[in-house]
Amino acid sequence: MKIGLLGFGVVGQGVYDLIASREDMSVVKVLCRKDVSLPGVQVTKDFNDILNDSDIDTVVEAIGGLHPAYEFVKAAIEAGKNVVTANKALVATFYDELIPLAKEKGLCFRCTAAVGGGIGWLSELERARRIQTIEKVGGIMNGTCNYILDSMTRLGFDYTNALKQAQELGYAEADPTTDVEGIDTWHKAILSSNVAFGICLDSATVPVAGISRIQATDVENFKAHGLVCKLISTGMFTKGKVSAYVQPTLVKFGEPESAVPANYNLITFVGSASGRMSFYGQGAGRYPTAYNVVQDCADVLLDKGFYSPCGEKVKAENTDFMRYYVRGEKDSWLEENTAETWGTAIISKPISVEAMHVWLKNHPEAFIAALAE
Amino acid sequence: MKIGLLGFGVVGQGVYDLIASREDMSVVKVLCRKDVSLPGVQVTKDFNDILNDSDIDTVVEAIGGLHPAYEFVKAAIEAGKNVVTANKALVATFYDELIPLAKEKGLCFRCTAAVGGGIGWLSELERARRIQTIEKVGGIMNGTCNYILDSMTRLGFDYTNALKQAQELGYAEADPTTDVEGIDTWHKAILSSNVAFGICLDSATVPVAGISRIQATDVENFKAHGLVCKLISTGMFTKGKVSAYVQPTLVKFGEPESAVPANYNLITFVGSASGRMSFYGQGAGRYPTAYNVVQDCADVLLDKGFYSPCGEKVKAENTDFMRYYVRGEKDSWLEENTAETWGTAIISKPISVEAMHVWLKNHPEAFIAALAE
Repeated sequence: MKIGLLGFGVVGQGVYDLIASREDMSVVKVLCRKDVSLPGVQVTKDFNDILNDSDIDTVVEAIGGLHPAYEFVKAAIEAGKNVVTANKALVATFYDELIPLAKEKGLCFRCTAAVGGGIGWLSELERARRIQTIEKVGGIMNGTCNYILDSMTRLGFDYTNALKQAQELGYAEADPTTDVEGIDTWHKAILSSNVAFGICLDSATVPVAGISRIQATDVENFKAHGLVCKLISTGMFTKGKVSAYVQPTLVKFGEPESAVPANYNLITFVGSASGRMSFYGQGAGRYPTAYNVVQDCADVLLDKGFYSPCGEKVKAENTDFMRYYVRGEKDSWLEENTAETWGTAIISKPISVEAMHVWLKNHPEAFIAALAE
Repeated sequence: MKIGLLGFGVVGQGVYDLIASREDMSVVKVLCRKDVSLPGVQVTKDFNDILNDSDIDTVVEAIGGLHPAYEFVKAAIEAGKNVVTANKALVATFYDELIPLAKEKGLCFRCTAAVGGGIGWLSELERARRIQTIEKVGGIMNGTCNYILDSMTRLGFDYTNALKQAQELGYAEADPTTDVEGIDTWHKAILSSNVAFGICLDSATVPVAGISRIQATDVENFKAHGLVCKLISTGMFTKGKVSAYVQPTLVKFGEPESAVPANYNLITFVGSASGRMSFYGQGAGRYPTAYNVVQDCADVLLDKGFYSPCGEKVKAENTDFMRYYVRGEKDSWLEENTAETWGTAIISKPISVEAMHVWLKNHPEAFIAALAE
């Protein structure tokens, strides 16, 4: 396998390192804006040098972001090259275009590292689907949010200090919006549901609530009730109906999710035969992420195309009822739906996920967290 | 794929059910001592009916125990049939005979369900080894022991009542020796190290301590120090040296292992690229176990032979130093190695795993538990 590697940042360098000693694949060209010198490898600033190289059969995209990653990946597929990427925003956004295009061309398109970093999550779903139906997917999919929530819970930090510490340690970006508002988890949730259920979710129907408005007083409230707050994604497929959402969720102290420390991920599927299966590991980092990129390359050598059929476009129907912790301005709807009061916050009566997120959209200053049952 | 199924108990029936709706494989004959009637399937009491049927390309062994499972499996391989089994005692005991024999014949030998039930553990190790070196394997591998320890910790049961409850719920056998003395975990630990490190461990060099001598007062002692007792297997490969052992281990409350409830398993490998990866799920049960048996059949269709080379015979060298909780008759060696006293028990100075297990052999009434660092 002759690889054209797009990007030579944290993940790109990791991929290069892991492939260096292999005999079944080699990186022959690297697209990189900086001047670097790599033995036996042509480094270029022009993507066309890779696109037009007929020796290159596989493009590994490690640039990140939507553009120009999308244009490059699309052109690579059109030119007959397999694609491996860790870019969840790219795949979640252009799922219904890129996957069918690769399939039509008889090429492989793999993105295992896009969810769970070092956890072989999408590959696991692919394997699981050989034998059974998957009924549920989800869990803790963002290391930044977990790091912040864990610092607040275990060390008593407030949100600002927890975020600052995460930034200092390299676990959060200078602009943390994508992580703390749940967008990163949302991309991963959509991708997981698509692969697990063999569908193509309409992302506009998948609501997301992040953690940026959580306060130290909320965490104190949770602790007093034996609860730990985690940002959790959920996808369910029941009787032909799909529900999917991302929201802060309160789990009981002692449950597996409550014990996930620092920037780790814990992702779970429930299968009709296997029951609950969970995967715990580094959700990011150079070598864990690069590890799954190289695993994907090994699977391309075995001609593993994509994880599941890219099925029909499906709208999520979030009619499940849950109880919520809500801290925010009380209006008549909230008062009507209040079951208990916890300090300045309330615990709601069971309300539909959809209704809760509609209310949240109109009360962007509020913080909500679902109570896991 | 035409399958001869040996045994029609809990797992055998599960395999039959999961295969019934598939087009890529079918059960054509079942070996069963009882008179059962299955549509389109020949049920026989004579193994030769399966052995001599040249249409049958794969034998699924779901009898359990060493004999006659060993004789049947060996004969099947010699007759040119692939073998899939969930029998860890069989595979751990006859590893250096059966695996090379299957390899020599160019056949597949798979046993994913032998460790972790529904967790695709051995398959994961096989996948991990494609890209990296595995440095460590182990964890909670026996649901019976975890159920008993969990009942003692969470519900305050004493050992006898916890075992009785586990038996009533079907989580422990009438004779629980194999589970509670750690033999089952020991088989799984040996098998995991063999596959992960590409070796063939000399089982006589792998010490095991079980949980049958734990008392409610021990658990109270652990709780008072924020610790939870779990039966944990360890295999490590460092600088060409292998260490491997099974022993009760004290983990801090809040660590992932401490949160594993009921009859669940939590198994971990540490890879040179991926870092720590853990797998959590049902360690047993009809469908979780049958699920991985059928996964193995799907992998036989892809001609996946065995998980790793069956390397040279290796002795474990358990020279790692650990601190131990020890409750038992105090002799001069123990007094010399005492660092603290916890009620009627002591916490030792750091001593080698090997030395601790030699002492335990001479003090079979004692209970020991290692302190995880």
